[in-house]
Amino acid sequence: MNFEYHNPTDVIFGAGSLPRLGEVVSRYGKKALIVTGGGSVKKTSIFDRAVASLKESGIDYAECDGVEPNPRITSVARGAKIAHDENCDVIVALGGGSTMDASKVMAAAFYYDGDPWDMIFHGQPKPFFPTKALPIVTVPTLAATGSEMNPNGVITNEATKEKSFTGAACMYPKVAIVDPELTLTVPKNQTAFGVCDIITHVTEAYFNGVDGTPIQDRFAEGVILTVMEYGKRAIADGSDLEARAHMQWGSILALNGWVNCGTNGGYPVHMIEHTVSAFHDITHAAGLAIINPSWMRFAAKQHTSKFVQFAERIFGLKSKGPNDLDCALAGVDKFEAFLKEIGCPTHFSELDIDDKLFAKYAQETLRIINDGNGNLPARPPMSEADIISVLQAAL
Amino acid sequence: MNFEYHNPTDVIFGAGSLPRLGEVVSRYGKKALIVTGGGSVKKTSIFDRAVASLKESGIDYAECDGVEPNPRITSVARGAKIAHDENCDVIVALGGGSTMDASKVMAAAFYYDGDPWDMIFHGQPKPFFPTKALPIVTVPTLAATGSEMNPNGVITNEATKEKSFTGAACMYPKVAIVDPELTLTVPKNQTAFGVCDIITHVTEAYFNGVDGTPIQDRFAEGVILTVMEYGKRAIADGSDLEARAHMQWGSILALNGWVNCGTNGGYPVHMIEHTVSAFHDITHAAGLAIINPSWMRFAAKQHTSKFVQFAERIFGLKSKGPNDLDCALAGVDKFEAFLKEIGCPTHFSELDIDDKLFAKYAQETLRIINDGNGNLPARPPMSEADIISVLQAAL
Repeated sequence: MNFEYHNPTDVIFGAGSLPRLGEVVSRYGKKALIVTGGGSVKKTSIFDRAVASLKESGIDYAECDGVEPNPRITSVARGAKIAHDENCDVIVALGGGSTMDASKVMAAAFYYDGDPWDMIFHGQPKPFFPTKALPIVTVPTLAATGSEMNPNGVITNEATKEKSFTGAACMYPKVAIVDPELTLTVPKNQTAFGVCDIITHVTEAYFNGVDGTPIQDRFAEGVILTVMEYGKRAIADGSDLEARAHMQWGSILALNGWVNCGTNGGYPVHMIEHTVSAFHDITHAAGLAIINPSWMRFAAKQHTSKFVQFAERIFGLKSKGPNDLDCALAGVDKFEAFLKEIGCPTHFSELDIDDKLFAKYAQETLRIINDGNGNLPARPPMSEADIISVLQAAL
Repeated sequence: MNFEYHNPTDVIFGAGSLPRLGEVVSRYGKKALIVTGGGSVKKTSIFDRAVASLKESGIDYAECDGVEPNPRITSVARGAKIAHDENCDVIVALGGGSTMDASKVMAAAFYYDGDPWDMIFHGQPKPFFPTKALPIVTVPTLAATGSEMNPNGVITNEATKEKSFTGAACMYPKVAIVDPELTLTVPKNQTAFGVCDIITHVTEAYFNGVDGTPIQDRFAEGVILTVMEYGKRAIADGSDLEARAHMQWGSILALNGWVNCGTNGGYPVHMIEHTVSAFHDITHAAGLAIINPSWMRFAAKQHTSKFVQFAERIFGLKSKGPNDLDCALAGVDKFEAFLKEIGCPTHFSELDIDDKLFAKYAQETLRIINDGNGNLPARPPMSEADIISVLQAAL
């Protein structure tokens, strides 16, 4: 367990935090580029309230709207151009994970004359690592991606059917203003996808990390148990502010490093899903809900004890010992049943995706990231055949 | 659950991290003041290895040794003077919590012409809040106080028999180099006190915080469970590096804000203990081990459900419901038995402290910190009579 951890983001958490936006942004600039997604922040009053807070602090603004659910590199380039043309000196990401991810890459693209796609790791020999970015303030309106307090972004190249990630220290948001009230209008299905997204972030590090991280394990289980409980409540009653708050704190913790520091795990389910959704433009968490249980059954055969621990501590099952594969798999069944219960798809057929391109997805995934031996970094490392078998089992 | 969280400290964690000291310190200065405690780092090779690493990076150094287990304001003033006289521009705290705490206050005292005691909250009308401090690098040699990654310090005024705390953003260490190998030579009793210290830090926020912090609760329980398990291993076999590592990570997490953000709890057991050890110069954690179980029995009567949760999740007890006081108290008994088992005192008589001054301790505690209504901030708030009754029950 050797690691280095540093997270400079200041998180302001709590219902009613949105009005602090203007004062916070004024620490970093005079004119904000407000980045938004498909328009839900305009249908609600969130956009207007954000603008009012900025104006009150004397902050001017320009807009980059219409960032896609799988945010595209063309939107990144567009946003960086608006920031230039409008002389913006700070970015406000007002939306879900895609808005926040695109904002981070825009912030770095602002200072980069080349093609912003150079920053996204897609198998190129020399990715561009940004060292300078506009200051970013995130204002999440969805509890899901955990993007609000980390320096990473996932971007799609529609032209080449690639979807991959980037991350650099300069892309840490300066401040995350996390106001659970902003998530009260998230519809049931998006809430459920958020639950799946959060839990999958946690399970990736939990199952793919090194052995001997007992506190991290407990933290991961704590996030999973809490998000399962309060996520169900938020799905049942969207106006349940307490449930929304705990989901949102869980969403941040799943990817801000507190749960996974020192685990050094791979993110195989994410990597495979990125390829699938680059081809099909499906909701990220829908892809995760389909691939994760299938991946778990694959991995549990080789790394049984961790899956037994999961089954026992998350679902209260009793094992016959750390190598009890039946117990491990029963835990996965319970997890898949939970995903179904909250309304997530768990098979590709539910999204009308067939197996014609499974080999292609596997090859593309491995082209974008592999361990040098042709395998996907994971525990256990996954060959092309392994990836195909996991996809096939999720058909 | 409303809070703001920001922790700028960079933590470098892992066995074998000490040799990174020179490179890390060279980011912040050219001449280090190395602050140490009673000399154990010289008896082992830790001091020499730290100096070798500094020299390798071209860092000169001066020394402030002999910081007491309950660090005194006179030592703080002495250290700040050495830093001035020797033109030091960075502080390396090489030792346990007292060394780190004293170093933080020295770092701020370096820029303050007045009496450094002005910074310690001891009931004065206008405490001095420092805004500037020398950069600090902490290198803990003991897993206990959690001082390595927070901006707080506890200092004793020997002349006035006062012991209290301070904290300011400028006192966050820049980097904490946390090398569990440095704790391998900690003797059994100090290891046990460390276990008690860590767990008490966690229980304070856990029991005194607001309702409705489910993830924080799980995190707190995760630290307690892990430190109980690996702490026992470290006491049984001091050379068990894995046990030392998990204890040390637990020590940091107990007070770096990850476990308690948003809980807004008081620290009554600490506040009472500070007064007792200001009078008797006892080991801080010995005082905690005596006062905490007694305080728990007092608080469990009014806030039973949290103590039931503690009993169930930490000790596996089964309650008849959230108001089952018998179960709550059985959990406290189990906790006290654990402290005894690892070798901590749990009654004042074991330290030859009688009840003569109990009223005085209560008055002093309330003079240093109270809620404006004459009560100690805690859940429930404690009157002078409450404090005396808790002390009496621990006689």
